[in-house]
Amino acid sequence: MRRKPKIVLSSAGRFRPLALAAAPAHPGRTTKGSAMSDTVARKVIGAHLLDGRMEPGEEISIRIDQTLTQDATGTLVMQELEALHLDRIKTELSVQYVDHNLLQADEKNAEDHEFLRTAALRYGLWFSKPGNGVSHPTHMQRFGVPGKTMVGSDSHTPAAGSLGMLAIGVGGLEVAMAIAGQPLHLRMPQVWGVELTGRLPEWSSAKDVILEMLRRHGVKGGLNRVIEYHGEGLATLTAMDRHVIANMGAELGATTSIFPSDDAVRAFLRSEGREDDFVELRADAGAEYDVHEQLDLSTIVPLIAKPSSPGNVVPVREVAGEDFSQVVIGSSANPGLRDFAIAAAMVSGRQTDPSVSFDVNPSSREILADLTKMGATLELVLAGARIHQSGCMGCIGMGQAPATGRNSLRTMPRNFPGRSGTHDDSVWLCSPETAAASALTGVITDPRDWAEDAGMQYPEITLPDEATVNTAMLVAPLPEEQARHVELVKGPNISSLPEFPPLPDRIEAPVLLKVGDNISTDEISPAGARALPFRSNIPKLSRFTFTQVDETYPARAEETAKTTGHFIVGGDNYGQGSSREHAAITPRYLGLHAVIATSFARIHWQNLANFGVLALEFENPDDYDTIRQDDVLVLDGVREAIRSGPHLTLFDSTRDVEIPVRHRLSPRQVDDVLAGGLIPQLARRE
Amino acid sequence: MRRKPKIVLSSAGRFRPLALAAAPAHPGRTTKGSAMSDTVARKVIGAHLLDGRMEPGEEISIRIDQTLTQDATGTLVMQELEALHLDRIKTELSVQYVDHNLLQADEKNAEDHEFLRTAALRYGLWFSKPGNGVSHPTHMQRFGVPGKTMVGSDSHTPAAGSLGMLAIGVGGLEVAMAIAGQPLHLRMPQVWGVELTGRLPEWSSAKDVILEMLRRHGVKGGLNRVIEYHGEGLATLTAMDRHVIANMGAELGATTSIFPSDDAVRAFLRSEGREDDFVELRADAGAEYDVHEQLDLSTIVPLIAKPSSPGNVVPVREVAGEDFSQVVIGSSANPGLRDFAIAAAMVSGRQTDPSVSFDVNPSSREILADLTKMGATLELVLAGARIHQSGCMGCIGMGQAPATGRNSLRTMPRNFPGRSGTHDDSVWLCSPETAAASALTGVITDPRDWAEDAGMQYPEITLPDEATVNTAMLVAPLPEEQARHVELVKGPNISSLPEFPPLPDRIEAPVLLKVGDNISTDEISPAGARALPFRSNIPKLSRFTFTQVDETYPARAEETAKTTGHFIVGGDNYGQGSSREHAAITPRYLGLHAVIATSFARIHWQNLANFGVLALEFENPDDYDTIRQDDVLVLDGVREAIRSGPHLTLFDSTRDVEIPVRHRLSPRQVDDVLAGGLIPQLARRE
Repeated sequence: MRRKPKIVLSSAGRFRPLALAAAPAHPGRTTKGSAMSDTVARKVIGAHLLDGRMEPGEEISIRIDQTLTQDATGTLVMQELEALHLDRIKTELSVQYVDHNLLQADEKNAEDHEFLRTAALRYGLWFSKPGNGVSHPTHMQRFGVPGKTMVGSDSHTPAAGSLGMLAIGVGGLEVAMAIAGQPLHLRMPQVWGVELTGRLPEWSSAKDVILEMLRRHGVKGGLNRVIEYHGEGLATLTAMDRHVIANMGAELGATTSIFPSDDAVRAFLRSEGREDDFVELRADAGAEYDVHEQLDLSTIVPLIAKPSSPGNVVPVREVAGEDFSQVVIGSSANPGLRDFAIAAAMVSGRQTDPSVSFDVNPSSREILADLTKMGATLELVLAGARIHQSGCMGCIGMGQAPATGRNSLRTMPRNFPGRSGTHDDSVWLCSPETAAASALTGVITDPRDWAEDAGMQYPEITLPDEATVNTAMLVAPLPEEQARHVELVKGPNISSLPEFPPLPDRIEAPVLLKVGDNISTDEISPAGARALPFRSNIPKLSRFTFTQVDETYPARAEETAKTTGHFIVGGDNYGQGSSREHAAITPRYLGLHAVIATSFARIHWQNLANFGVLALEFENPDDYDTIRQDDVLVLDGVREAIRSGPHLTLFDSTRDVEIPVRHRLSPRQVDDVLAGGLIPQLARRE
Repeated sequence: MRRKPKIVLSSAGRFRPLALAAAPAHPGRTTKGSAMSDTVARKVIGAHLLDGRMEPGEEISIRIDQTLTQDATGTLVMQELEALHLDRIKTELSVQYVDHNLLQADEKNAEDHEFLRTAALRYGLWFSKPGNGVSHPTHMQRFGVPGKTMVGSDSHTPAAGSLGMLAIGVGGLEVAMAIAGQPLHLRMPQVWGVELTGRLPEWSSAKDVILEMLRRHGVKGGLNRVIEYHGEGLATLTAMDRHVIANMGAELGATTSIFPSDDAVRAFLRSEGREDDFVELRADAGAEYDVHEQLDLSTIVPLIAKPSSPGNVVPVREVAGEDFSQVVIGSSANPGLRDFAIAAAMVSGRQTDPSVSFDVNPSSREILADLTKMGATLELVLAGARIHQSGCMGCIGMGQAPATGRNSLRTMPRNFPGRSGTHDDSVWLCSPETAAASALTGVITDPRDWAEDAGMQYPEITLPDEATVNTAMLVAPLPEEQARHVELVKGPNISSLPEFPPLPDRIEAPVLLKVGDNISTDEISPAGARALPFRSNIPKLSRFTFTQVDETYPARAEETAKTTGHFIVGGDNYGQGSSREHAAITPRYLGLHAVIATSFARIHWQNLANFGVLALEFENPDDYDTIRQDDVLVLDGVREAIRSGPHLTLFDSTRDVEIPVRHRLSPRQVDDVLAGGLIPQLARRE
């Protein structure tokens, strides 16, 4: 086994000059040989670099080739395009997916879909109709191109890293800016090289690889890093296996994950009838990573994340025998044909346990068509599966919510509290193998132990050489001349964006809420069938803010919105998880001026700045304990203070102590926050 | 063509004596030859008659062999079994289905399912798991037996008439009583013989037959009648075709519909591996019907019911070209393999219109399995279908609600206002052929015209000789000894039944609501994703009462519940549609004493009596115009009055007029109403 030296900082010699980076039409193709011994991540960033130095921590700006939006965040993005008076997308390709709100429990979902359809037609986006599939695998199948950059208003956008794309989850407003041709600003991440060796044992699969990463590093292990996988072990992972791993890199808090574009990618694109889109893109021999890690695939055992964090990973055998009432196979975290086919092979000729609901949610129509052709759909149905329309479903709390307190086993990426749609839920995350074995036995079961009992060999899954490519539900962009005449259809539930005032110079306001570590955006602005239909209606959606944590917050906050406004105090990794900018907008709408936390998750931190909320970090983490809920805090002369440097002093007038805090805003972001957010700031520039 | 004389009343000579009727274990088998020239309906009733004379309008009681409950009404039925201290079902067979609330938008659905599963185990019912299929086709496939009687807490229970069963939709409490071994009391209906001649032309199908019946007779045409189909035309209709017709007989207001058990039934049962359950059951030569009608199948054209009543039927060509945004194929009104297969054959190799959502909802896992085997699932998916889990879905407003004001074409049985889940909806009912043709063109289209344009021959659908019988999701009853030890699992959302006081002797109360003709139980107690999860929680569900008609009703009514109570005034056919007893219980919970209407739909009328609400009819229908909303009405000495006869006098103290009204309660029902409902009445007897 090779070992590579750990290199903390990259050298300036590998930067790509701005002019060159902006020019090439096929950046993936032109980066080859442009720098000695470079990593895949740096090659793609370098080829798209517009401004800044590729030094970890430095703000850079890069050109964005593609965008991805889904319906839960996309309605705001489309409203933002409208507010920006955009005429036509400026990216190479933008796709609006509808995969989150498919229940259509009342008219609001269908109205959102109609708004998105007409907005896509108006601005020149592709439109993926409701039921066509989950955005991430569908994008990979139809649109992903190695070496391209993409932003998406969905935190699992990095799944496209499976094809060698640099794909980053961001807030909706940044996607809107990218669609409008603006660069993406971000801090240059460290490149974390994970060298894969060996090959996975039978009954372990890609999901167990990423669960192992989470077991080792937890939900903050990837902060400010791009995870780049390399090494001989890659050869044993298909492009879809890599999708599983790249997708859930989001759970490590990573900026993104990226794989080389190699033979596995070529084979995938060939099977999709898109071999012409293949571009080879590999790390150079001897490429140096900022951080280095090794993972021997042959040591990976079936793993499971216990409730209620993707970081609570243990071997399945440690919790074997635990009772549960539901198994769900599907979502962007296990979207591949193989993931469903292996479950079908395991349950074939058998019956799932009578006390278990066995829910199968093919991730796209293409996958359902292929599963059906290979006979797997029938095997699943005969074993007791409920086949659901292709979409995100329970992963985002839109359907199949479990009973209160009953365990649910899912192949999904997240199990944050309440995200399933059930307030007091108990969700576990595992591989399709573990899910299928458990569905058969009725208790949590290591698939190796089930196989031994059942006398079953590890099934050999042969995937078709050609996928069933079908574009019936992909609506192509209209020609520009026609597009201009499309009217946006806005149903009664689609509101306008609220307008926010500039940051006041003096803030004297109470701490309305103090929360702990790792608060997710699911806890700030919940998903689920009650709240999601209001994603295009900020006043109504704001009533759900923080209700998962404190049901009294919306009413108390709304009071402050009329007077002093308020603060929130958080712990470590505040705002992890989904990219939803609603988690910044709705508290802001309810009067939030600033969040003071030990640290912030990247996307939410950016969203706060975009919507004019100050994100402040404790200089001394122990001060988290000093401030209590309901304390009155004072920030005086704050406008000048944040302009002149990172350091500020917060005065806790209840305790009569000064608390040193800092911001990490770039000068560009300082201007945004002072203006009340990026949209008023843009309006001012006009 | 034969014509039969119209005979209004049957003769007493055909009654079966009580003792004989109660005795046989296989009544279907023993009725043959028991009476000269009898109809199928009368043979089955006669074989189960326990009390009364089979004279139309007379109260009779019959023995019930089977029961059907679904989850939206079944949770109350199970609570009623608990209140009745039942130990074990007394029927030959009872099945608890879960097909309505499958969205599981939060924990409440899953909690209901768990309660129902444990209740089924406790009391000895079969349990059909969520996702196994819609109750009516599933019951037909697995449990239906010619000549048996069945009650179901679902108004489409009569679908089992397709097998020669006498299957009646009733309130949940009557199902509970039947499960507990009590007879069903009903007024002997007229037998309405519909003689079918000829055969359906290409592009017309069973749905068009029942739409033709609705076109002719409207939503009240079947009141107090059993529709019995006979004649040579029957030979061209499969058992599943007959299911379509029997199912939607409910829309005519009929007590039930019934077909003979003939070769088509034998073929169906054989394909289900149940030929042993076949019992031949035909009308005798020269059988006489109370009412007679003729329907020449060869004259039937594609028909469609316009919004928002199943009675608004017109030829498809009359509305061709109308825009719409959604097509749904599925539900108990078109549940057969043929119904999906013909749609698949039509869209095969084609693409549905980009502006249309094409939703396909296989009615059971068996149907999905068969469709998949024959390649139809794949054809549908490739043409752009969203495949949904087997269940009632949008038919009961649980998902796929259309956008406000946008037309939705559905093969479902009902289009009452708001039933789709969208408040201001616009739902049309049609055949799978019309639905598929329209999905392809994007506008409402007569399938004959589409076929001509497309150059398509009417497809020959060959159904498999053997269905894919699969019982993975049917949980068998436990042996009695084990069943006794099962504990009912009641989640936090499962309340107890409210207790209601006896009828007061003097009522002086306002008319809180005055409504028009044909008010459906959907308008009284809405279905849909917002309300349905509360079906096992009367206090919470009551807040939705009449909101489709008047959003202020629940709050105003709740006020009266604390003081005087209130009246409701209705027009003709009050309470049509679904069997849900919630439409009686929730207004009662909110203080309703009596409904005064021009006429009542049968099931709701019975439900009102069961829960202690007086149903009064205007002696003079013009008096409907006399009373206005908010008038104060007085009923004095009402307890004695309803005991001594059908006639009562209502005093409108606002207008200072007396209004003659009548009730139609049997002495047994008078006792129930006086006691405050059947449950307090039973409690009193104990």
